[in-house]
Amino acid sequence: MKYKKIDSGYALRFFTGENVLHKINSFLEKEKIFSGTIQGIGALEKAELSFFSAEKKVYDTKSFEEDLEVLSFLGNISLKEGKPFVHVHVSLGRKDFSVIGGHFVSGITGATLELFMHNLGCVLERKKEENGLFLLDL
Amino acid sequence: MKYKKIDSGYALRFFTGENVLHKINSFLEKEKIFSGTIQGIGALEKAELSFFSAEKKVYDTKSFEEDLEVLSFLGNISLKEGKPFVHVHVSLGRKDFSVIGGHFVSGITGATLELFMHNLGCVLERKKEENGLFLLDL
Amino acid sequence: MKYKKIDSGYALRFFTGENVLHKINSFLEKEKIFSGTIQGIGALEKAELSFFSAEKKVYDTKSFEEDLEVLSFLGNISLKEGKPFVHVHVSLGRKDFSVIGGHFVSGITGATLELFMHNLGCVLERKKEENGLFLLDL
Repeated sequence: MKYKKIDSGYALRFFTGENVLHKINSFLEKEKIFSGTIQGIGALEKAELSFFSAEKKVYDTKSFEEDLEVLSFLGNISLKEGKPFVHVHVSLGRKDFSVIGGHFVSGITGATLELFMHNLGCVLERKKEENGLFLLDL
Repeated sequence: MKYKKIDSGYALRFFTGENVLHKINSFLEKEKIFSGTIQGIGALEKAELSFFSAEKKVYDTKSFEEDLEVLSFLGNISLKEGKPFVHVHVSLGRKDFSVIGGHFVSGITGATLELFMHNLGCVLERKKEENGLFLLDL
Repeated sequence: MKYKKIDSGYALRFFTGENVLHKINSFLEKEKIFSGTIQGIGALEKAELSFFSAEKKVYDTKSFEEDLEVLSFLGNISLKEGKPFVHVHVSLGRKDFSVIGGHFVSGITGATLELFMHNLGCVLERKKEENGLFLLDL
């Protein structure tokens, strides 16, 4: 992954085969970014998505191993237990143009992935709540 | 709903059971925000979506009562008949990872909803046009 | 298409029947914009989407002629062979609230289309790579 400082944030470009979240986490730690918004488009060759069942209070997770267009990669960066944490949801396009999506657990970059990160430069913290989830504590 | 001023906008965090648009509208009036962009991710436990048929010039509306991941909540804020107006479209993920979406009529927050609002601080007005819709008058 | 300078970018509003990319390209050349992010919502009456097969290294393209809600229009602007180039992916809602999406090849505006462009004001260039694609060279 290569990135470039721009304006009030960064442009990030991922290479085929790279683990998206691993690369983002390294970048956040290196650049000391603790709060922000992140968005972009591209492609994945593998994605793991999850769905939170409010009733069962558990995440169901499913893997998709196929070429997928990243139609929207949308999320935010906050502090969770003292470390930068990325919370992202994705919509992914399949070869028949149908769309799947969910909470982004992990993904491997396809042809490319182009993300733009806006550094909010403030404290944005998550705390564990009664339902077991770490949610924004504004 | 709790919110926090950040940078050139706000971070908003909604609580389970809250009516999303009611809370946004109160927030906009309280903070005197008349123009902006808004986006985010999260979950809903109920959503009402509509689809505009250009041919019939009417909105078809449908309710979904189930856990839904908010994959993208994307829209803008403008002035409509002298009041702040939120125009939002959503993509929503179901438990089988399929996706539904449309014009966001209303929604009840699920586990959480995390939105980021950018205040444009300008006049952005909607006016009623021939087709009966209130559209941006730039 | 009408547009208005706002803050660090522009608001763009498209009219029924307009070719979205033609209008964006004219706007970028006129305003001398070489880098940015673009996003928005609205409706199309026709859309041409493509899907990149990493294995076959070709784009499959399909046209959709129907009313479509633009749930997310998300992308970026960069320089490609010396000219401003718009790279956009879309999620589109159909009348049954199902969603299709892909790489945005072309589209004709439906009732309206409301986009917001953020001018990054930097050099963001694409170069042709081994796979034949023009990718961001950060």
